[in-house]
Amino acid sequence: MIEKVDHIGIAVSNLDEALAVYRDTLGLTFCGTEVVAEQKVRVAKLKGGEDTIELLEPTGPDSPIAKFLAKRGPGIHHLCLAVDDIEQTLERFKAKGMRLIDESPRIGAGGCRIAFVHPQSTGGVLIELSEKNES
Amino acid sequence: MIEKVDHIGIAVSNLDEALAVYRDTLGLTFCGTEVVAEQKVRVAKLKGGEDTIELLEPTGPDSPIAKFLAKRGPGIHHLCLAVDDIEQTLERFKAKGMRLIDESPRIGAGGCRIAFVHPQSTGGVLIELSEKNES
Repeated sequence: MIEKVDHIGIAVSNLDEALAVYRDTLGLTFCGTEVVAEQKVRVAKLKGGEDTIELLEPTGPDSPIAKFLAKRGPGIHHLCLAVDDIEQTLERFKAKGMRLIDESPRIGAGGCRIAFVHPQSTGGVLIELSEKNES
Repeated sequence: MIEKVDHIGIAVSNLDEALAVYRDTLGLTFCGTEVVAEQKVRVAKLKGGEDTIELLEPTGPDSPIAKFLAKRGPGIHHLCLAVDDIEQTLERFKAKGMRLIDESPRIGAGGCRIAFVHPQSTGGVLIELSEKNES
């Protein structure tokens, strides 16, 4: 079951410039930055009320975000949906013939179990599924 | 002040096909459709918990969504932020040199007062501001 929109991920080429817009001008609440080494990305987390926006800056030219920026330019990169049971969700999607980037969950930012669904199966939207780590 | 993410708008070429994914496979709760004549778009509203996703299908070739689809293909079109005072927010953005698509609010889906901010000022993201109609 989908519990909520966990966050919206925005690809940026420069995190400081993006924070000048999203924190200083738009006025979202800045919650800090984190490097997710596995995905080669530096993430700034911002809140608008209970909702979360993540700004994603590549840490190297082989980062998926660097490739996205080169191909499409800066902008919304993915939509993350919080699910109660990621394995069950992936099984259900597989049974429906959805194309998955991750067939089984891996560890993402904040220690959550995550998996990506291919945009080809979702009308052009890269969807991340995230299940909160209970511990 | 930004109160929350009001919704995420996704451009789709065929609403029925998109509903087969977002309602039937992803399992989001379908809340109905609405035609917004001014923006030449048919909107399907879906909920994941308290969060809203809008699927946007053009109603004609001169719809902004038709132009987006022709240029970029289907995918996330805009991010809508709920604000408590849209006029004050627009004034603040103007003073900061942000490029606005709407200098003053107009009426959007559900009778809300809305305005769009140009992606050039937000790192490639089309941002809609929305103020709930109190009446």
